[in-house]
Amino acid sequence: MRQRHLFMTLALAACAASPAFAGDVALGKQKAISCAACHGQQGLSTVPDAPNLAGQPELYVSTQLKAYRSGKRQHEVMSLMAKPLTDDDIENLAAWFASLKIQVVQ
Amino acid sequence: MRQRHLFMTLALAACAASPAFAGDVALGKQKAISCAACHGQQGLSTVPDAPNLAGQPELYVSTQLKAYRSGKRQHEVMSLMAKPLTDDDIENLAAWFASLKIQVVQ
Repeated sequence: MRQRHLFMTLALAACAASPAFAGDVALGKQKAISCAACHGQQGLSTVPDAPNLAGQPELYVSTQLKAYRSGKRQHEVMSLMAKPLTDDDIENLAAWFASLKIQVVQ
Repeated sequence: MRQRHLFMTLALAACAASPAFAGDVALGKQKAISCAACHGQQGLSTVPDAPNLAGQPELYVSTQLKAYRSGKRQHEVMSLMAKPLTDDDIENLAAWFASLKIQVVQ
Protein backbone atom coordinates (compact mmCIF):
# COMPACT_ATOMS: atom_id res chain seq x y z
CA MET A 1 0.00 0.00 0.00
CA ARG A 2 2.87 2.34 0.84
CA GLN A 3 4.50 1.43 -2.48
CA ARG A 4 1.30 2.26 -4.31
CA HIS A 5 1.13 5.62 -2.57
CA LEU A 6 4.74 6.32 -3.54
CA PHE A 7 3.99 5.39 -7.14
CA MET A 8 0.99 7.73 -7.26
CA THR A 9 3.04 10.56 -5.75
CA LEU A 10 5.80 10.09 -8.32
CA ALA A 11 3.29 9.89 -11.16
CA LEU A 12 1.62 13.12 -10.06
CA ALA A 13 5.01 14.85 -9.73
CA ALA A 14 5.93 13.73 -13.25
CA CYS A 15 2.68 15.18 -14.60
CA ALA A 16 3.28 18.47 -12.85
CA ALA A 17 6.81 18.69 -14.22
CA SER A 18 5.87 17.83 -17.82
CA PRO A 19 5.93 20.92 -20.04
CA ALA A 20 2.64 22.48 -21.07
CA PHE A 21 3.99 22.92 -24.60
CA ALA A 22 5.70 20.65 -27.12
CA GLY A 23 8.32 23.31 -27.83
CA ASP A 24 10.64 25.30 -25.58
CA VAL A 25 9.02 28.63 -24.66
CA ALA A 26 12.28 30.38 -23.70
CA LEU A 27 14.07 29.38 -26.91
CA GLY A 28 10.99 30.38 -28.88
CA LYS A 29 10.93 33.81 -27.26
CA GLN A 30 14.56 34.31 -28.27
CA LYS A 31 13.91 33.20 -31.86
CA ALA A 32 10.80 35.38 -32.06
CA ILE A 33 12.91 38.53 -32.05
CA SER A 34 12.94 38.21 -35.86
CA CYS A 35 9.12 38.17 -35.90
CA ALA A 36 8.65 41.32 -33.82
CA ALA A 37 8.84 43.88 -36.64
CA CYS A 38 5.49 42.66 -38.03
CA HIS A 39 3.98 40.57 -35.21
CA GLY A 40 5.05 42.72 -32.25
CA GLN A 41 7.23 41.85 -29.27
CA GLN A 42 4.22 40.38 -27.47
CA GLY A 43 2.76 38.77 -30.58
CA LEU A 44 0.38 41.65 -31.32
CA SER A 45 0.43 42.69 -34.97
CA THR A 46 2.03 45.97 -35.96
CA VAL A 47 1.00 45.91 -39.63
CA PRO A 48 -2.43 45.46 -41.26
CA ASP A 49 -1.66 42.24 -43.13
CA ALA A 50 0.11 40.42 -40.30
CA PRO A 51 -1.91 38.46 -37.75
CA ASN A 52 -1.64 38.63 -34.00
CA LEU A 53 0.20 35.51 -32.87
CA ALA A 54 -0.17 35.92 -29.10
CA GLY A 55 -2.28 33.13 -27.71
CA GLN A 56 -2.61 31.21 -30.96
CA PRO A 57 -2.87 27.45 -30.47
CA GLU A 58 0.57 25.82 -30.63
CA LEU A 59 -0.52 23.35 -33.31
CA TYR A 60 -1.94 26.12 -35.48
CA VAL A 61 1.29 28.16 -35.43
CA SER A 62 3.54 25.16 -36.12
CA THR A 63 1.27 23.96 -38.94
CA GLN A 64 1.31 27.39 -40.59
CA LEU A 65 5.08 27.83 -40.27
CA LYS A 66 5.61 24.41 -41.82
CA ALA A 67 3.18 25.33 -44.62
CA TYR A 68 5.15 28.52 -45.32
CA ARG A 69 8.41 26.58 -45.22
CA SER A 70 7.18 23.95 -47.69
CA GLY A 71 5.52 26.51 -49.95
CA LYS A 72 2.01 25.16 -49.34
CA ARG A 73 1.08 28.56 -47.90
CA GLN A 74 2.68 31.60 -49.46
CA HIS A 75 3.35 35.19 -48.45
CA GLU A 76 6.09 37.42 -49.79
CA VAL A 77 7.64 37.94 -46.35
CA MET A 78 6.70 34.74 -44.51
CA SER A 79 7.86 32.41 -47.28
CA LEU A 80 11.35 33.88 -46.84
CA MET A 81 11.22 34.00 -43.03
CA ALA A 82 10.11 30.37 -42.69
CA LYS A 83 12.58 28.90 -45.19
CA PRO A 84 15.58 28.51 -42.82
CA LEU A 85 13.58 27.37 -39.77
CA THR A 86 14.30 23.92 -38.36
CA ASP A 87 11.54 21.74 -36.91
CA ASP A 88 12.81 22.67 -33.44
CA ASP A 89 12.71 26.39 -34.26
CA ILE A 90 9.11 25.99 -35.37
CA GLU A 91 8.08 24.03 -32.28
CA ASN A 92 9.76 26.59 -30.03
CA LEU A 93 8.19 29.58 -31.80
CA ALA A 94 4.78 27.92 -31.60
CA ALA A 95 5.27 27.26 -27.89
CA TRP A 96 6.28 30.88 -27.24
CA PHE A 97 3.30 32.40 -29.01
CA ALA A 98 0.90 29.87 -27.46
CA SER A 99 2.28 30.70 -24.01
CA LEU A 100 1.11 34.33 -24.30
CA LYS A 101 -2.41 34.29 -22.90
CA ILE A 102 -4.92 36.70 -24.38
CA GLN A 103 -8.37 37.85 -23.48
CA VAL A 104 -11.08 39.82 -25.25
CA VAL A 105 -11.46 43.16 -23.50
CA GLN A 106 -14.47 44.42 -25.41
CA MET B 1 -15.54 83.43 -41.44
CA ARG B 2 -18.79 82.06 -40.09
CA GLN B 3 -19.10 79.91 -43.22
CA ARG B 4 -15.59 78.56 -42.70
CA HIS B 5 -16.44 77.68 -39.11
CA LEU B 6 -19.58 75.89 -40.28
CA PHE B 7 -17.59 73.98 -42.88
CA MET B 8 -15.04 72.85 -40.28
CA THR B 9 -17.80 71.74 -37.91
CA LEU B 10 -19.48 69.71 -40.63
CA ALA B 11 -16.18 68.17 -41.70
CA LEU B 12 -15.39 67.13 -38.12
CA ALA B 13 -18.87 65.67 -37.67
CA ALA B 14 -18.43 63.64 -40.88
CA CYS B 15 -15.13 62.28 -39.60
CA ALA B 16 -16.65 61.31 -36.27
CA ALA B 17 -19.52 59.54 -38.03
CA SER B 18 -17.31 57.60 -40.46
CA PRO B 19 -17.06 53.93 -39.51
CA ALA B 20 -13.87 52.63 -37.94
CA PHE B 21 -14.07 49.55 -40.16
CA ALA B 22 -14.60 48.95 -43.87
CA GLY B 23 -17.22 46.29 -43.17
CA ASP B 24 -20.37 46.29 -41.04
CA VAL B 25 -19.60 44.99 -37.55
CA ALA B 26 -23.20 44.08 -36.68
CA LEU B 27 -23.78 42.14 -39.91
CA GLY B 28 -20.40 40.46 -39.43
CA LYS B 29 -21.34 39.38 -35.91
CA GLN B 30 -24.51 37.80 -37.27
CA LYS B 31 -22.64 36.00 -40.07
CA ALA B 32 -19.95 34.82 -37.64
CA ILE B 33 -22.39 32.43 -35.96
CA SER B 34 -21.20 29.86 -38.54
CA CYS B 35 -17.58 30.38 -37.41
CA ALA B 36 -18.23 29.87 -33.70
CA ALA B 37 -17.89 26.08 -33.59
CA CYS B 38 -14.15 26.34 -34.29
CA HIS B 39 -13.30 30.00 -33.66
CA GLY B 40 -15.52 30.58 -30.62
CA GLN B 41 -18.35 33.04 -30.11
CA GLN B 42 -15.86 35.76 -29.17
CA GLY B 43 -13.31 34.75 -31.80
CA LEU B 44 -11.24 32.63 -29.41
CA SER B 45 -10.33 29.26 -30.89
CA THR B 46 -11.98 26.12 -29.57
CA VAL B 47 -9.88 23.61 -31.54
CA PRO B 48 -6.10 23.20 -31.80
CA ASP B 49 -5.79 23.86 -35.53
CA ALA B 50 -8.08 26.90 -35.69
CA PRO B 51 -6.68 30.35 -34.97
CA ASN B 52 -8.10 32.96 -32.63
CA LEU B 53 -9.75 35.60 -34.80
CA ALA B 54 -10.61 38.15 -32.10
CA GLY B 55 -8.65 41.32 -32.65
CA GLN B 56 -7.08 40.27 -35.94
CA PRO B 57 -6.47 43.15 -38.32
CA GLU B 58 -9.43 43.65 -40.65
CA LEU B 59 -7.23 43.49 -43.76
CA TYR B 60 -5.62 40.25 -42.62
CA VAL B 61 -8.96 38.48 -42.09
CA SER B 62 -10.44 39.65 -45.38
CA THR B 63 -7.28 38.70 -47.29
CA GLN B 64 -7.28 35.20 -45.79
CA LEU B 65 -10.99 34.62 -46.40
CA LYS B 66 -10.54 35.68 -50.03
CA ALA B 67 -7.53 33.36 -50.30
CA TYR B 68 -9.61 30.45 -48.99
CA ARG B 69 -12.45 31.36 -51.35
CA SER B 70 -10.16 31.47 -54.40
CA GLY B 71 -8.27 28.34 -53.39
CA LYS B 72 -4.96 30.16 -52.95
CA ARG B 73 -5.00 29.09 -49.29
CA GLN B 74 -6.46 25.70 -48.50
CA HIS B 75 -7.90 23.97 -45.45
CA GLU B 76 -10.37 21.12 -45.47
CA VAL B 77 -12.96 23.07 -43.48
CA MET B 78 -12.19 26.68 -44.41
CA SER B 79 -12.12 26.05 -48.14
CA LEU B 80 -15.74 24.91 -47.88
CA MET B 81 -16.79 27.64 -45.44
CA ALA B 82 -15.35 30.46 -47.56
CA LYS B 83 -16.70 29.25 -50.91
CA PRO B 84 -20.20 30.82 -50.68
CA LEU B 85 -19.09 34.11 -49.04
CA THR B 86 -19.72 37.34 -50.93
CA ASP B 87 -17.27 40.24 -50.82
CA ASP B 88 -19.65 41.98 -48.42
CA ASP B 89 -19.83 38.92 -46.15
CA ILE B 90 -16.04 38.88 -46.02
CA GLU B 91 -15.73 42.59 -45.26
CA ASN B 92 -18.37 42.30 -42.54
CA LEU B 93 -16.77 39.24 -40.94
CA ALA B 94 -13.38 40.96 -40.98
CA ALA B 95 -14.90 44.06 -39.37
CA TRP B 96 -16.54 41.98 -36.63
CA PHE B 97 -13.41 40.09 -35.68
CA ALA B 98 -11.27 43.24 -35.85
CA SER B 99 -13.73 45.03 -33.57
CA LEU B 100 -13.06 42.56 -30.74
CA LYS B 101 -10.17 44.10 -28.84
CA ILE B 102 -7.69 41.75 -27.21
CA GLN B 103 -4.88 42.12 -24.75
CA VAL B 104 -2.06 39.89 -23.58
CA VAL B 105 -2.69 38.99 -19.95
CA GLN B 106 0.55 37.15 -19.26
